[in-house]
Amino acid sequence: MKQKLSIIKIGGNVIENKKDLTKFLQAFSKIEGLKILVHGGGKLATKLGEKLGIASKLVNGRRITDAQSLEVITMVYGGLANKNIVAELQSLECNAIGLSGADANLIQANKRPVAEVDFGFVGDITTVNSDALHKILENQWMPVFCAISHNKKGQLLNTNADTIASEIAIGMSDMYETTLYYCFEKKGVLLDVSDNNSVVTHINTSSYQELLAKKIIADGMLPKLENCFNALHKKVAKVCIGDISMLDQKSTLHTTITL
Amino acid sequence: MKQKLSIIKIGGNVIENKKDLTKFLQAFSKIEGLKILVHGGGKLATKLGEKLGIASKLVNGRRITDAQSLEVITMVYGGLANKNIVAELQSLECNAIGLSGADANLIQANKRPVAEVDFGFVGDITTVNSDALHKILENQWMPVFCAISHNKKGQLLNTNADTIASEIAIGMSDMYETTLYYCFEKKGVLLDVSDNNSVVTHINTSSYQELLAKKIIADGMLPKLENCFNALHKKVAKVCIGDISMLDQKSTLHTTITL
Repeated sequence: MKQKLSIIKIGGNVIENKKDLTKFLQAFSKIEGLKILVHGGGKLATKLGEKLGIASKLVNGRRITDAQSLEVITMVYGGLANKNIVAELQSLECNAIGLSGADANLIQANKRPVAEVDFGFVGDITTVNSDALHKILENQWMPVFCAISHNKKGQLLNTNADTIASEIAIGMSDMYETTLYYCFEKKGVLLDVSDNNSVVTHINTSSYQELLAKKIIADGMLPKLENCFNALHKKVAKVCIGDISMLDQKSTLHTTITL
Repeated sequence: MKQKLSIIKIGGNVIENKKDLTKFLQAFSKIEGLKILVHGGGKLATKLGEKLGIASKLVNGRRITDAQSLEVITMVYGGLANKNIVAELQSLECNAIGLSGADANLIQANKRPVAEVDFGFVGDITTVNSDALHKILENQWMPVFCAISHNKKGQLLNTNADTIASEIAIGMSDMYETTLYYCFEKKGVLLDVSDNNSVVTHINTSSYQELLAKKIIADGMLPKLENCFNALHKKVAKVCIGDISMLDQKSTLHTTITL
């Protein structure tokens, strides 16, 4: 039987609030067995950029990562957020190790090809180095990933944290029974966006089609769910979406997605 | 026979200049066998601090690391410098892994006690986790350390890079035959500070006393050399001081220190 591995992605809202982050890290440190954390940096990078007079660049409403933005992201995600999370986890007796995709060549990516928009230094993941990650886990080090990959040619690349989490889960599914957790501010996929208790507790392939037809899953939730099903089709055992309380095994109000 | 391990500390001047850094990283990547890099951040942190309106705080001419300065240091050393060095080494086929002392609990420190001066969030190293570092090296990952440690209670601590390098060398000397390299802008310990070719090529315990008596070793070089002899007394095999060319095995013009 395969060993269990939990991959948890936390959203920006959790990172930005010191109290929420501590609450999350306490819950994370208590998860039994092997686990991997993936974090973005939320609005911290935007705020630092503003202080430095680096304006966010948008083309057709999409954010562009120019050289200056990448520097800010590397400082905030790779340095400030990552190292403080690791130090706090260490204080909670969780033997964390902070990583980017460049470290030990763990996550390789290509710069997104220029089509209508040049997104700048944005990476599309090509390889997760599952052997290296396995060795890290074997040593009982719990990886904490910032959302930065590299192209193996010396270039760091800003990379979507949701995608990093799902690609890691997919990459590790041959060796482990993986569960992918998307942890954000809501309790899960909601029937009524204005009611945080209207959680759809279970979604599978057929109920997903119904939710799509009824337009209950739309907007930002749509790519997230597509990402989830992609992971499930590539051998990830289970995907869960919910808030911090989802990590507490006794709590049940969150969305579980299976094929 | 013990396996060889090289620990190389690079100074701020190398980090600040893109061309020098590339030249150094090319030389580092070619060093045979196991190796560890320790870097400071040079004036990059001061420059970012200035841009953010955070003035360097000095008391009796000594730099103080307050909470804001620590944030800047964590961003610049732990994020920007560290991750870019790792990405560049990866492009040179050197399988680097970027680390702070918090990661895998590698370097634990205490906040420096307040005596005449409160230095703020500055760490005095208590433990190098040589078992964990040994496991990293066994996997052929080459550690790249920024000069940040932690207190295992959630607090990151700004830590002298020279000391991190010597404490790592000392900590690994039971398991490895260690050589500690201090790489800076000069060719070594100089008889005449104004002549970069007046290198003292070899110093041992007795010639050190002569150099001290003649006041050839003074000022900033004095604590550096004390650090070197401390390392040698604690089983480090050899210490070398010089510029980038020292890492090229064919080059000889640098200072070698033995007991």
